[in-house]
Amino acid sequence: MAKGKINVSVENIFPLIKKFLYSDHEIFLRELISNATDATLKLKHLSTIGETKVDYDNPLIEVKIDKEGKKLHIIDHGVGMSKEEVEKYINQVAFSGAEEFLEKYKDSAKDSGIIGHFGLGFYSAFMVAEKVEIITKSHVEEEGAIHWVCDGSPEFTLTKSKKKDRGTEIILHIADDSTEFLEEHRISELLLKYNKFMPVPIKFGTKEINDPTFEPKTIKDKDGKETTEPHKQLTVDNIINNPNPAWTKQPADLKDEDYKSFYRELYPMQFEEPLFHIHLNVDYPFNLTGILYFPKLTTNLDVQKDRIQLYQNQVFVTDNVEGIVPEFLQMLRGVIDSPDIPLNVSRSYLQADGAVKKISSYITKKVGDKLQSLFKNDREGFEQKWNDIKIVIEYGMLSEPKFFDKAQKFALFPTVDDKYFTFEELVEKVKPAQTDKDKNIVLLYATNVDEQHGYIEEAKAKGYEVLLLDSPIISHLIQKIEGENSELSAEKQPIKFARVDSDFVDNLIKKDEEQISKLSDEEKTKLKEIVEGIVPKDKYTVQLEALDSNANPFIITIPEFIRRMKEMSQTGGGGMMGMSNFPEMYNLVVNTNNELMQKIIKSKGKKEEYVNQALDLAKLSQNLLKGKDLTSFIKRSFELMK
Amino acid sequence: MAKGKINVSVENIFPLIKKFLYSDHEIFLRELISNATDATLKLKHLSTIGETKVDYDNPLIEVKIDKEGKKLHIIDHGVGMSKEEVEKYINQVAFSGAEEFLEKYKDSAKDSGIIGHFGLGFYSAFMVAEKVEIITKSHVEEEGAIHWVCDGSPEFTLTKSKKKDRGTEIILHIADDSTEFLEEHRISELLLKYNKFMPVPIKFGTKEINDPTFEPKTIKDKDGKETTEPHKQLTVDNIINNPNPAWTKQPADLKDEDYKSFYRELYPMQFEEPLFHIHLNVDYPFNLTGILYFPKLTTNLDVQKDRIQLYQNQVFVTDNVEGIVPEFLQMLRGVIDSPDIPLNVSRSYLQADGAVKKISSYITKKVGDKLQSLFKNDREGFEQKWNDIKIVIEYGMLSEPKFFDKAQKFALFPTVDDKYFTFEELVEKVKPAQTDKDKNIVLLYATNVDEQHGYIEEAKAKGYEVLLLDSPIISHLIQKIEGENSELSAEKQPIKFARVDSDFVDNLIKKDEEQISKLSDEEKTKLKEIVEGIVPKDKYTVQLEALDSNANPFIITIPEFIRRMKEMSQTGGGGMMGMSNFPEMYNLVVNTNNELMQKIIKSKGKKEEYVNQALDLAKLSQNLLKGKDLTSFIKRSFELMK
Repeated sequence: MAKGKINVSVENIFPLIKKFLYSDHEIFLRELISNATDATLKLKHLSTIGETKVDYDNPLIEVKIDKEGKKLHIIDHGVGMSKEEVEKYINQVAFSGAEEFLEKYKDSAKDSGIIGHFGLGFYSAFMVAEKVEIITKSHVEEEGAIHWVCDGSPEFTLTKSKKKDRGTEIILHIADDSTEFLEEHRISELLLKYNKFMPVPIKFGTKEINDPTFEPKTIKDKDGKETTEPHKQLTVDNIINNPNPAWTKQPADLKDEDYKSFYRELYPMQFEEPLFHIHLNVDYPFNLTGILYFPKLTTNLDVQKDRIQLYQNQVFVTDNVEGIVPEFLQMLRGVIDSPDIPLNVSRSYLQADGAVKKISSYITKKVGDKLQSLFKNDREGFEQKWNDIKIVIEYGMLSEPKFFDKAQKFALFPTVDDKYFTFEELVEKVKPAQTDKDKNIVLLYATNVDEQHGYIEEAKAKGYEVLLLDSPIISHLIQKIEGENSELSAEKQPIKFARVDSDFVDNLIKKDEEQISKLSDEEKTKLKEIVEGIVPKDKYTVQLEALDSNANPFIITIPEFIRRMKEMSQTGGGGMMGMSNFPEMYNLVVNTNNELMQKIIKSKGKKEEYVNQALDLAKLSQNLLKGKDLTSFIKRSFELMK
Repeated sequence: MAKGKINVSVENIFPLIKKFLYSDHEIFLRELISNATDATLKLKHLSTIGETKVDYDNPLIEVKIDKEGKKLHIIDHGVGMSKEEVEKYINQVAFSGAEEFLEKYKDSAKDSGIIGHFGLGFYSAFMVAEKVEIITKSHVEEEGAIHWVCDGSPEFTLTKSKKKDRGTEIILHIADDSTEFLEEHRISELLLKYNKFMPVPIKFGTKEINDPTFEPKTIKDKDGKETTEPHKQLTVDNIINNPNPAWTKQPADLKDEDYKSFYRELYPMQFEEPLFHIHLNVDYPFNLTGILYFPKLTTNLDVQKDRIQLYQNQVFVTDNVEGIVPEFLQMLRGVIDSPDIPLNVSRSYLQADGAVKKISSYITKKVGDKLQSLFKNDREGFEQKWNDIKIVIEYGMLSEPKFFDKAQKFALFPTVDDKYFTFEELVEKVKPAQTDKDKNIVLLYATNVDEQHGYIEEAKAKGYEVLLLDSPIISHLIQKIEGENSELSAEKQPIKFARVDSDFVDNLIKKDEEQISKLSDEEKTKLKEIVEGIVPKDKYTVQLEALDSNANPFIITIPEFIRRMKEMSQTGGGGMMGMSNFPEMYNLVVNTNNELMQKIIKSKGKKEEYVNQALDLAKLSQNLLKGKDLTSFIKRSFELMK
């Protein structure tokens, strides 16, 4: 048996680093700024524990474009490197100085915010540069400054430098295929994307501001005319980042206005204010900070899901939090920062990862708690917000059993008259009037107050409460609520939902009341024959009912079960396969007690006109009269007016 | 000045490969199967050029799970490796045997389909395995078999093996955090995702089929009862891939049915057939093959855009073709295969890359050509498909100027009566009747035949053609067409689009005809006062017109310009900022020549009733009568019938 060691030659690995290291070349800037930040934070730490003599006074990182020279400079005032350190950290690919530092100072430095891990970041410079220079001077005073140059071959040169101040300057000679990184707007875009909240101030260019100490004088000219001296401008450093973003602070140190202004910082193009926020802050069993915001949401489920940004130690990582934040909360906005989320693994692995699962359920729990306390402490305010947040809560109730249970306490059921009930309150309220003869409690709802107006009015006239449930997923949710309730003990009454137009009002909640028809059985048979002979058979099932004589002569209803299944299969999941292609079928309820029926039965030549006009009006009420039929109806009605 | 060479130690780089090599661990299987494929294709090539004695007879790759032993085996019958080759290709990270092979045989092997590039793929095994074994025997007969074992530290052992047949077997000892890769369904899923069309057959397990040679006999039992012998089953290899997918063949060798069956292979869950296909095949200046399909598309713009799959040498890479395929064609389905598309670069770079730009415009051109030839060779068939494909064509016309020009020849303008015109034909056809007094050619259109039925009928009664333009982006497109046309020479007439309900019919296309009013000026003033006193001022602008006495008394119109701007700002881009929040404003055209006007002017107590009923009917015609107003209208109308 032979033994050996796998070897790797820098000639083979170097070309790979250039092509292959990150799928996105722009990452190089994030990596170099992370290194500069680490160098600064290391010095801060050493100064804190008294291991360096220098003052940690000017913790600035500077980015400069030299367009003419095709160079990009990244300059820090951190620890710097001695010759030995360059040889150790730079000349050895994948030797991580950050890891070494954290290992050496593990007790004191674990919260220092140091980012580095793999010791590869620096080499990403070669993805965009044909030559890279390092000019560096260690904070240790006796060490001389060093100048390192490498043209992308694995060979480098090392000379002495005249650099006087401590810190490191990286100079990238940008390659011809990467000149985009010499454009100010591109660098600015990258800094704002990846480094907007990094902990050391980053200077990129200068800007002019009004000198705050300047007091303009009024000057008289030779003609005696007075003019005011123009305001004096100052050129100051343009700091592009906010080193202390709100999520890194303690909730107790932040006012409501601070959260709002951080929201504006995160989403400068967003003019609407968030409804409320949730500050996340946990140390154990994992590290996580962050702020989630509830924006105003529409009932549209196709909302953008890439609004929550994921950071690790204040470095932007991604805006895809799939697998980390439960799906129903991906409609929120905000920031999550955790060094504990593994990123270089497949999403399916992520979902199975124990730590990530804990993070996900922690976030769900915190959101639930916040909603509950909002409901408890300011019910009126919560009711006002309900329509803007219900889609998240209803979606959460559908998809997360634990959230369903918790939401029982604060999920609201609004009525068409703007009253808001919890489920418990609702059932309590409607029980006396809305229990049917089989002891079911029937909850009536509408999905559109305009389209179902006639039906809503009928139900309200009976003294019933009509809910307004207009989310696209509502059929799934009520199906679930009915299901949960059917498992209740025999003592409790089963719950059923019915849309107001799913039957005529007396039949929505069947009581043991006898209907008395003004028509004889013979007349009824005749009436049914007439109506069935005129209305299209394939669309309407004619159903004679002895309703109040003041109720409309014809009423079109859509049976609850079929409609709900169709809706469920349209919004995906649940429901029955293929139900969405089920043909439109209606019941045509004919009110035998309406005066018109006598006219229909007795008329000689106008039977058809009466039935069609009554059918048209019933169709109007269900939003079904359209196109040619509507145009003829309108013509006919104008004729009647003349 | 000191010179030196950057070095890289395997101890540093090895842990990185495990964590960091690919962001998705599942890639390891794709890489190992690619290696096995390369080994097989190399043997094929050597056998073709007579450099090996062995028969290239059984080019099978086998994947086996040993769940109990926690092992995954990948076995090929390709070139195999000698001891020297293992030392060269395996023991040196990032030394690519494939590149070396292609270099050596560059003249003959450039179309051999060999995949490898970087020499890193094999090491991806360590992302999921704690130990990896290689058992290999070279196709060169004199070479002995070799057994290589490495436990993930950079150390390996090398011993002789008893393996008799040529080829390589890789054995992965799956790590505890990766046991998902011991599940049959997971491996099957990965093979179908990445390897479904790779050029060497891949066997994964076995399946039972009916023996095709077996002829069942009828047997009599002792009671004389006849039974048929049960069908005999054969256990055969389960080959999971199709090594010769349609796109690798020549169009001349494929029938329409072949394209359809390949579509079913690509989208097994898709029951609808594609409308037609486009076979892409180009060698120069870049290599690209592929087949694009036009599926039936709805007018919904939010269609999934991840339907086109990108392959490189028959290995699946991604279903995100952003930047490679122009956006409007991302609604299509199908396959693109090109080794020339750089993948490890940022998307923004991709869009600037010359080769990729050429690919994108080649695809656009091919699609344009295909559409043009379909139109030319089978206009009727093209017209029938129009509604299913128009969204792509219209979107393309909006976003790609070259495509706009080309599409002039085949883009269709359907009328509400199912006639289809090209733009040129349309203009020719309507010019005589639809030129207004200012020499504009006015093209009338509807967006919904049901909702605008009354208005459509009015326009048709005048002898006008009414187009049916119902795509969500249509307002952008007609805006563009009007714009292109305004730049025409003075000789040609400008084109204007107007929706049928944007004015009353005589005003849609203004002619120099005098309107004669039956009302005196005094009566007109009085009528206007009455109407304005009753209809809501903030919604309706009352406009008296002397129309045909048979035309409706009240007509509601929506001015074209505001409506179009609102629509454009809703579908994004174009239009004016904030127009989507512009309030709904209507014109109420009052027909002074309709009999009803006399009644309104002269009536004592019923002025309001007349005006409201006429307004309600006009609102109905515009789909504006809703909710409470509709319910009262219906009640009122039923009362009238009694």
